Amino acid sequence: MSDSRPIGVFDSGVGGLTVLRAISERLPTESLVYFGDCARVPYGTKSPETVLRYSREAASYLLRRDIKMLVIACNTATAAALPSLSAELRIPVVGVVDPGALSAVRATKGRVGVIATEGTIRSNAYRDAIHRIDPSIEVIEAACPLFVPLAEEGWANTRVAREVAEVYLTPLLDAGIDTLVLGCTHYPILRATIKEVVGERVIIVDSAETTAEAVALRLHDSGEIAPEQERVCHFLVTDAADRFKRIAADFLEHQIEQLELVSVG
Amino acid sequence: MSDSRPIGVFDSGVGGLTVLRAISERLPTESLVYFGDCARVPYGTKSPETVLRYSREAASYLLRRDIKMLVIACNTATAAALPSLSAELRIPVVGVVDPGALSAVRATKGRVGVIATEGTIRSNAYRDAIHRIDPSIEVIEAACPLFVPLAEEGWANTRVAREVAEVYLTPLLDAGIDTLVLGCTHYPILRATIKEVVGERVIIVDSAETTAEAVALRLHDSGEIAPEQERVCHFLVTDAADRFKRIAADFLEHQIEQLELVSVG
Repeated sequence: MSDSRPIGVFDSGVGGLTVLRAISERLPTESLVYFGDCARVPYGTKSPETVLRYSREAASYLLRRDIKMLVIACNTATAAALPSLSAELRIPVVGVVDPGALSAVRATKGRVGVIATEGTIRSNAYRDAIHRIDPSIEVIEAACPLFVPLAEEGWANTRVAREVAEVYLTPLLDAGIDTLVLGCTHYPILRATIKEVVGERVIIVDSAETTAEAVALRLHDSGEIAPEQERVCHFLVTDAADRFKRIAADFLEHQIEQLELVSVG
Repeated sequence: MSDSRPIGVFDSGVGGLTVLRAISERLPTESLVYFGDCARVPYGTKSPETVLRYSREAASYLLRRDIKMLVIACNTATAAALPSLSAELRIPVVGVVDPGALSAVRATKGRVGVIATEGTIRSNAYRDAIHRIDPSIEVIEAACPLFVPLAEEGWANTRVAREVAEVYLTPLLDAGIDTLVLGCTHYPILRATIKEVVGERVIIVDSAETTAEAVALRLHDSGEIAPEQERVCHFLVTDAADRFKRIAADFLEHQIEQLELVSVG
């Protein structure tokens, strides 16, 4: 058994590209369709009702591309839309929160730091997901709102990024975390800088990698792994295609080709 | 003659609050109604047609509050909607670009720097407005995309902001500008940091202040200045009211009270 249909990956903008990249490295035969809602980015500052409505629209675009699985590669959208979309769609839906939470629980000795956008922190999505598995784990959260613009503007490996990371991460280190969850899909871009600040003793859980692992597991279990094929990557964006192309080249470390502008709303 | 009706101020989000503040300092008897379209921020990455549609909606909300004048406190919306709204509405409409351009022309010895968002720079709005007045002036533009998040996240007066400002502004200083236009309504929040970097010899044109001056002039000319009264400030936002409140307190240096959530689209 195998299934050559693509996996759909959806994010409010460019952040989910780190998840797309991790899936494409973990599962080299899978075709992928990415939907980046650049016209309405960011989701983090919008209400859950609005984010759910936007996520349904994104899903419907991807379903028209005959996807076999939907990956919500956005923490805000996972928190706001995963339960509804899982119930409404006939294909499996994977979010980014649970895989990261599970990895953190496996890695930690008891004290987990979670860094994410303001919206994700406010939603308590990671804290709740970790406590559903093990309520005894201490979770210390911090919003790092400047990390997204630093990643998108190509400043990930600068002295400025390092100083910002120190301001955000020092309280977590002072609190004695042994594990740090990168709870925003942009943050893997800053991983080297974050690693420099937290040092070798703190285990970093990259939710892009853990999500790719969860996708692989699901496809193996259901026998839907794609056969050996020349895989295709399509990109759909709702606005600002040039900006998307520039940042995507940076995030994926190669130029993207199949890019389409679609309209929403 | 006088007119006690409020002035309407409209922006895609929180940036226009610097314009509101400048108006309220310049014209202490005027009541104000602010419309922040936080549900659809940012406008800078959207098409002019979309921005015009959003601007018309914002105007119609404000007109229902019986405003005597509309201020478009957003560079993108000024570029996309000022001509149409001026023609369509029966009240005066003031944008942020022309007042800033005029001040720059008056201040400069010949070489003007303009800093703004990517979208405003791409639109050439300031360059065109300056050249309509004096085509001989050299205009050197730079997008400063990290300034908006630094201002919104309360990092305006930090070492990080200073380093970012040095990276963005050094090429303008090297090009020999004598005047610098803050061409984004967020940037006055970073004014002290920008001043430190450009030094005393570069004149800073703050488009919030120049817009407030233009508003004052218009009202004086038409005899519509508000009488001595206890002025009222109302705020309408389309999403994320808590975030708006927090940032508004920072931008205005006082808590805001009359905040209403309205729905659009």
